[in-house]
Amino acid sequence: MTAILQSLACDRWETPATGLVDIPSAIDGRVVARASSAGLDFAAIARHARQVGGPKLRAMTFHQRADMLKALGAYLGERKEQLYALAADTGANRRDNAIDIDGSLVTLAAFASRGRRELPDAGFITEGEVEALSKRGSFVGQHILTPLHGVAVHINAFNFPCWGLLEKLAPALLAGVPVIAKPATATAYVAEALVKMIDESKLLPQGALQLVCGGLGDLLDHLNGQDVIAFTGSLETSEKLRAHPNVARHSIRFIAERDSLNAAVLGPDIKPADPEFDLFAHEIVREMTAKAGQKCTAIRRVLVPRAQEAAVIEALKARLADVKLGDPRRDDKAMGPLVSRGQREAVRAAIATLQSEAEIVFGDPNVCEAEGIDTQAGAYMSPVLLRAREPMQASHVHATEAFGPVATVLAYDDVAQAVELVRRGEGSLVASLFTYDDVVAEQMILGLAPFHGRLLIVDRDDAAESTGHGTPLPALLHGGPGRAGGGEELGGLRSVYHYMQRTAIQCSPRRLARLTGTWTRGAPAPAAEVHPFKLNYNQLEIGQSIETASRPITLDDIEHFAHFTGDTFYAHMDEAAAKANPFFPGRVAHGYLILAFAAGLFVDPAPGPLLANYGLDNLRFLKPVSPDDSIKVKLTVKQKSPARRPEYGEVRWDVEVVNQNGEPVARYDLLTMSARPAA
Amino acid sequence: MTAILQSLACDRWETPATGLVDIPSAIDGRVVARASSAGLDFAAIARHARQVGGPKLRAMTFHQRADMLKALGAYLGERKEQLYALAADTGANRRDNAIDIDGSLVTLAAFASRGRRELPDAGFITEGEVEALSKRGSFVGQHILTPLHGVAVHINAFNFPCWGLLEKLAPALLAGVPVIAKPATATAYVAEALVKMIDESKLLPQGALQLVCGGLGDLLDHLNGQDVIAFTGSLETSEKLRAHPNVARHSIRFIAERDSLNAAVLGPDIKPADPEFDLFAHEIVREMTAKAGQKCTAIRRVLVPRAQEAAVIEALKARLADVKLGDPRRDDKAMGPLVSRGQREAVRAAIATLQSEAEIVFGDPNVCEAEGIDTQAGAYMSPVLLRAREPMQASHVHATEAFGPVATVLAYDDVAQAVELVRRGEGSLVASLFTYDDVVAEQMILGLAPFHGRLLIVDRDDAAESTGHGTPLPALLHGGPGRAGGGEELGGLRSVYHYMQRTAIQCSPRRLARLTGTWTRGAPAPAAEVHPFKLNYNQLEIGQSIETASRPITLDDIEHFAHFTGDTFYAHMDEAAAKANPFFPGRVAHGYLILAFAAGLFVDPAPGPLLANYGLDNLRFLKPVSPDDSIKVKLTVKQKSPARRPEYGEVRWDVEVVNQNGEPVARYDLLTMSARPAA
Repeated sequence: MTAILQSLACDRWETPATGLVDIPSAIDGRVVARASSAGLDFAAIARHARQVGGPKLRAMTFHQRADMLKALGAYLGERKEQLYALAADTGANRRDNAIDIDGSLVTLAAFASRGRRELPDAGFITEGEVEALSKRGSFVGQHILTPLHGVAVHINAFNFPCWGLLEKLAPALLAGVPVIAKPATATAYVAEALVKMIDESKLLPQGALQLVCGGLGDLLDHLNGQDVIAFTGSLETSEKLRAHPNVARHSIRFIAERDSLNAAVLGPDIKPADPEFDLFAHEIVREMTAKAGQKCTAIRRVLVPRAQEAAVIEALKARLADVKLGDPRRDDKAMGPLVSRGQREAVRAAIATLQSEAEIVFGDPNVCEAEGIDTQAGAYMSPVLLRAREPMQASHVHATEAFGPVATVLAYDDVAQAVELVRRGEGSLVASLFTYDDVVAEQMILGLAPFHGRLLIVDRDDAAESTGHGTPLPALLHGGPGRAGGGEELGGLRSVYHYMQRTAIQCSPRRLARLTGTWTRGAPAPAAEVHPFKLNYNQLEIGQSIETASRPITLDDIEHFAHFTGDTFYAHMDEAAAKANPFFPGRVAHGYLILAFAAGLFVDPAPGPLLANYGLDNLRFLKPVSPDDSIKVKLTVKQKSPARRPEYGEVRWDVEVVNQNGEPVARYDLLTMSARPAA
Repeated sequence: MTAILQSLACDRWETPATGLVDIPSAIDGRVVARASSAGLDFAAIARHARQVGGPKLRAMTFHQRADMLKALGAYLGERKEQLYALAADTGANRRDNAIDIDGSLVTLAAFASRGRRELPDAGFITEGEVEALSKRGSFVGQHILTPLHGVAVHINAFNFPCWGLLEKLAPALLAGVPVIAKPATATAYVAEALVKMIDESKLLPQGALQLVCGGLGDLLDHLNGQDVIAFTGSLETSEKLRAHPNVARHSIRFIAERDSLNAAVLGPDIKPADPEFDLFAHEIVREMTAKAGQKCTAIRRVLVPRAQEAAVIEALKARLADVKLGDPRRDDKAMGPLVSRGQREAVRAAIATLQSEAEIVFGDPNVCEAEGIDTQAGAYMSPVLLRAREPMQASHVHATEAFGPVATVLAYDDVAQAVELVRRGEGSLVASLFTYDDVVAEQMILGLAPFHGRLLIVDRDDAAESTGHGTPLPALLHGGPGRAGGGEELGGLRSVYHYMQRTAIQCSPRRLARLTGTWTRGAPAPAAEVHPFKLNYNQLEIGQSIETASRPITLDDIEHFAHFTGDTFYAHMDEAAAKANPFFPGRVAHGYLILAFAAGLFVDPAPGPLLANYGLDNLRFLKPVSPDDSIKVKLTVKQKSPARRPEYGEVRWDVEVVNQNGEPVARYDLLTMSARPAA
C-alpha cells in the first residue's frame, strides 16, 4: 500500500484521511506516497510551538542548544543511508544526495560549532560596544538580542528536502525559536522520514519542531509579530505569501529565497589555453547537471567575451556530450531525472520562452535516451545549452528560470557590458567570475556585489580548494536582492539573528553590568578582600577589583630594558630626537616596559587558581610615560566565560594603568585561564 | 498670498498648479500653505536619483560623505531660527522645536562622526572576519557591504518635519544612496524650507536629494529591488504601501515605524517616598505634554502596582493641573496645540474608544481654556489621563493610539502580570522601567526585550543624565517589532547598512587582500627590500613583510626579566610548580618577555617615518616558550587607514612570532602611527 505521509502536530503524528495528493516517483512515475494536511488544527499547532516549544527552548542557553544540534547531527549521520535510499525516487543520485543529506549534516555541525564558539553560555546576546550616552557616564546604552517569543514557519522547496529543512532549522533552534516546517509536497516523503528520525532521537524538547505535510492551511492566519516566515520557492508563491494580510498587519519577518538567474562570467583576459578556461567549462557543466540543474544556485547565464564565444560553446558541447543519464538507484555518475514529469513540462515551457531570444546549441528538450531506462515514463531530460542571439536585446533570458539542466550563453563586448548584462537578472543569489586579472576582478566584483548575495572568483590559485559556484556554505550568506527574494540565510550567526529581537537597553552602568555579566566603566568595582588571582572561576565576581601599589619608572629602567630587549628605538634613548617626535615630550618608557611592570605589580607569584595569561585585547597606550613618572594598575573582573573544558574558565580583566596624576597611560583587556572546580 | 509649496524634482523646484490642498495652522486654523504633487514626473524623479545622484554619491568615500553631512549640519545650524519661526504654526513651541530641529542637527553630526570614526575611507565595508573555507587556506570568504544602486524613498510623519527627514537622510547619504523625501502634508512647509536650505547650501551632489510635497503619485510603480522604502506613520498607511505589488515583486526593502502603545512601568519595589516615584510621575507628564503628546515614542500606558495606583493618579493629577496651554509663538513653557483640528478630532475619537474600558481621571477632551487664546479655533486640547477599569480584560487600551496628550493608567498585581500587560501592545518602540530592584529589573528587561526596540531603566543612579523615555538617539536602535512596524532606524551604523547589500566574496587570499586592502594569512607577503619601518605611510604596500633574525631565550633571560619587572609568577620561576600547571611543560618565558624581545628584533632604532606604537590588538599566546627555545618574528603590513590628522596614517601590522621549529608562539596586530608626507 502506498504510504500516507504523516504530519507532526503538537508532538503527535497525525495521518490525514482526506484531500490526499499523489506524489509520483521521478524515476518512473509510480506513486511513491500521498500527502494532505486536511484536518490539522493549525491554530493548535501555532499555540503548541508558542506555549510549549518556545519556553522549553528559551530555558536552555545557546551552548545547550548548540550541543543539542551537535548531538542531532551525530544521530542523523548514523542513519543517513535510509534517507539516501528514499531520495532516489526524487531523482537524486548519490552525488546529489551528498549535497542534500551530507550537506545538511555539515550545516548542523557548523551551527553547533559556532554556537559554542561565538555565542555566550547564556540566554541572550550583547551586540556591539557599550554606548556612552552622557557626559559623566552615569547613563549608558547597550544593544542586546533576545529570542523572539513566536514560531518560525519554514516553507521549503522540493529540491533539497533535507538540507532545506535543516539549514533553516539550525539557526532557528540555536536562537531559541521553535519551528513549523512545511516541506514541498513533491519530495515530502524524504522530509517526513527525516523528521521521524529527529522525533525518535528525542534530542529536541517538546514543541520545538512540528511538520506539516501537505498545504499550509490557515496557518498564516495564526501568526503575529513575534513570528518569522522563511520561504524558499518561486517568485509567484512568495508574492502570494507576502501579500497575506497578517504579514503586513503584524510586520511578520519574511525571509525569501526564490527565482535567481545566476551568472558565470569568463573574464576578457582568459583565453582557451589559460587554466581558468577549463575551470569555467567544468563549472558550467557541473552546475547544469548536478541535481539535474534543479538548484536555486545553478548557473543559468553563461557570459563570455565575444571573441571566445565559439570556443566556449565548443568546449561545453564536448563536455555535455559526455553527460550520461541514468537511474539514480544504480548509477552514481549519471544525471538522474527531474523531480517529476510536471517539472519537466515546466522546464520545456521555459526553454520555449528562451528560444524567442536564443537558439539551442546542444540537446533537445523533448528527446533523450539512456540505455535500459524509460526516459519518458521517468522525468528524464537532456541537458540543453542555448546561445542568446543578441544579448543586449534579450529580456526573457534574464528573467526566465528554467529549473532544470539548462543554461544560455551570452557574448559580451567589454567588462562594463558584462556587468550590465549580469545586473539585468535584477538580483541573484550568486555569480562566479573566472579571471586572473586584478583590474577585471575588481571592476566585476564591485559592479556586481550590490546585485548578489555571494560572488565566487575562481582562478588558478583557488580552484583546487574552491567549493564551487552552486554550494551555499554555513559560514557565508545565502540569499540575494530583488528577484532572488531579498532574504539572507546562513552567513554564520547572521541567520540566527533573524529569529531574535534587537533591543537597545539604556540604564546605569551598574544595572548594565548586572544584566549582561560584563563589567563596564562606571559600574561599581569594589576592592576585593583577597587578591582576585587567588580566587577560582566560580568565586570570582564581576566587578571585583584590586588597585596595586605604585612603582616609579626611571631612566635607568628604560635604558636597562632597551639594552636587555634590544629595543633601542630613539624615542627611548635620545632626548633630542624623542622631543622632535610629534607624539613624545622627550624620552619615554617602552610600551612593553609599562606592560611588563604592570604585570609585575599585579601578578601573584604563588601557585593558585589563576593558571595562565593567554592573551591581551584592545591594548591602547594613551599617554607617554616619562622617566620618573610612576605607574599603578587597577585590575577589574570584566567577564567570565566557560572554556572548552569544564575544569577551566576564561576570565577577562579590565586593566587600567595610571600615572602619578591618576591619568590613564594604558588600557587593555587581560585574558586568563582560571581553575573551575566542579560545583 | 498663501505660499504654494514647491517640490524639488530633478534638481529643479517645481510649483504645482492643480490639486492643491490647504494646510491649516495649528494655532488658529488659517491656511498657512497649499500643497500638491500634481504634474510631477515620478518616473523621471526616480531615474534622476538612479542616474545622477547615485553615481555621484558612490564616487565619494564614506569619509567624504561623512564630511558632507558634517558641513551640512553646520550650515543648517546657522539658519535654524528660520525653521523655528515657521514651525510655530505646527503647534511646536521652542522646547518642541529643540526636539525636532536641534535633534535633527545632533543626528546629522552623530552620523558624520561615526562615518569618520567607524567606516573606512573607501567605497565599501568589509564585515566580520575572514572565513577559512579550505584546509590548505587557498580559498577564503569575506562579507562586504556595498551601496545599493537604487533610491531611498523616505515617507515621513507630520510630527517631526526636520528630525524625521534628516534622521532618515543621514544614514542613506552616508551609505551612498540618493533620497526622495516625502514629508507629511500637514507640516510640509517646514520640510520644504529645510530642503530649500539644503539645496542652497550646494553641499550635496546633484540628484542626492529630491523632495515631493503632496502625494506620492505613482512613485512606487517605478521602484525595484535596489530601492529602499522607509516609512513613518500609521499602521493603515503602512499596510497599504507594503501591499503595493512592486514591493513584493521586487523584494523592496521596507522599513516601517508606526503605531506604538509605549508603556512606562513603576516597579513593585517603588513606594511614594522613593526617588523613582517622582521620576516616574515627572516622566509621564513630560511625555504626555511634549509636542502635545504627538510623539510615536510617547507613553500611552502607565503601569503601576495596584497598591500604588491611587498615589500615582494623585501625583499625576497634581502635575497635570500645573500644565498650561499657550501660543507656541509666545510661550515656551506652555503646551501648544495639536497639529490640526482634524488631528484633535481623531484624538477625541480614540479617547471615546478608550472610555469603553477606562474612565477619565483628569481633563476633558472637549474642554480647555487658556488666557487670551481661542482654544477652539486653534487645535488646543487638555491633557487627558484615564484609568483602566480592569486592565487584564482591556483590549482597546493596548491597541488604540490616541496621538495626543493622552495616557491610561493600568494597575497590575505582580511582575509577571505587568510583563503580560505590556506585551499586549504587540510590539512597541520603547518601554521604560522605574525600579531599583535587581530581580525586578532583570525579569522585566528580559520579559519585555523581545517586544521592544528600546528599553529605558530609570533609577536614582542614572536619572540625572537620562535622556528620557521619548528620545530616540542616533547611537541606539529606534523601531520596534509587530505593531510598531518591525523597522530599525538609527542604531549607529545599523541604519546605514539598510542601504547596502551584503555580499559574501569567495576567492583566494591574494584576491581578497587586493580587493579589501587588508592582508590576510595566505596572501603573498614579499620580503621588503628595505626595512618597512623606514617607509612612510604612502610608500608602504599591503603585504610587505620582513622576517627578523632569531634570538634564543635563556633561563637567565627569564630570571632576569622576572626580577627586573617583579613578575615572579611560579610558571617562570619554579620548575616543579610549572610542570604541575596543566598548560606548561615546565618553566616558560613570560608572555611580555616574548613581546619585548620581538620588538627588540624588529624595531629600527633610528628616527624615521614610523613615529609610535600606539597599541596592540588580538594578542594570543599560542604555545609556551621554554628556556633555550629561540624566537623570530614575521612582520607584515596588514592595513593602512588615514589618521585624524592628514600628516599621519595608521598602519596595522600582522605580527607572528615563531619558535625554532617554525611553530607560532604568539600572534597579534601591532598598531603604529606613520608619517604621511603630502602627496
